[in-house]
Amino acid sequence: MRLTTFSDYALRVLMLAAAERPRLITIDETAALYDISRAHLMKVVHVLVKQGYLRGIRGRSGGFTLQKAPEDINLGAVLRITEPDFTLVECFSPENGCILSNRCKLPNLLNEGLNAFVSVFDRHTLADLAVDPNWFSAVGSGRLRQRGPSVATAQSST
Amino acid sequence: MRLTTFSDYALRVLMLAAAERPRLITIDETAALYDISRAHLMKVVHVLVKQGYLRGIRGRSGGFTLQKAPEDINLGAVLRITEPDFTLVECFSPENGCILSNRCKLPNLLNEGLNAFVSVFDRHTLADLAVDPNWFSAVGSGRLRQRGPSVATAQSST
Repeated sequence: MRLTTFSDYALRVLMLAAAERPRLITIDETAALYDISRAHLMKVVHVLVKQGYLRGIRGRSGGFTLQKAPEDINLGAVLRITEPDFTLVECFSPENGCILSNRCKLPNLLNEGLNAFVSVFDRHTLADLAVDPNWFSAVGSGRLRQRGPSVATAQSST
Repeated sequence: MRLTTFSDYALRVLMLAAAERPRLITIDETAALYDISRAHLMKVVHVLVKQGYLRGIRGRSGGFTLQKAPEDINLGAVLRITEPDFTLVECFSPENGCILSNRCKLPNLLNEGLNAFVSVFDRHTLADLAVDPNWFSAVGSGRLRQRGPSVATAQSST
């Protein structure tokens, strides 16, 4: 199970913007810091500006910063924008070709799971992901650990 | 957000095997019915046999069928096998390169969401996805609809 790169980058951009505010940060700086695609990042920032999460300033000394306070940025709302399709399986896509689709019961279960996932994010704001700005300047100090996944063991033995 | 093709196919194979039991079904038949990759399907069936969900019979008149009753096949347990990595974002992967990883709070939130998602499947068995065998023979009758996603609107306006 994967989130789109778009969501991953959007959350990282918002975390950086929150840590550095009110300083304007740039796409080049963000791409270099996270070592991620500049082109992809431009699209992410464009959407976050358009949706009112970031304020973009054009020009040579331009950049972007948070438009709202971190506690006013609900993470469930962000996810609904950055994961527009939530195409968990084939039949969730407009190009659905699965023959079971018309009467299958799996979509209901998947939607229930999806809503349980998004509900967790609905209960949190960007303020809950606050990163100390000093962490960014400590880049490279220490080996990077894998941080997940951590799924609880089955509640049933079957 | 996407499940792996492996999970998608595994659930479809189990649903077909449950509907057709005790008849032995074949990989060729399943691949043709769902119009999916035979090679990929072989790997899925291999894992489901190895894990005791399917019973495989070799030979010319061989095939596979359910090894357990549908009500004894917990869907959360299946998902834990077919989604071995749950690599929601970069830092959930062993190839993690995100500079925030060591102190970021996002992994905890993602793991909470992930467990909420899997918990929904823990509460259901294959019996809850029962498909009338006649549906399979009615293939092609009617346009295929998109079945999801259906995410509730945000609980917060922020």
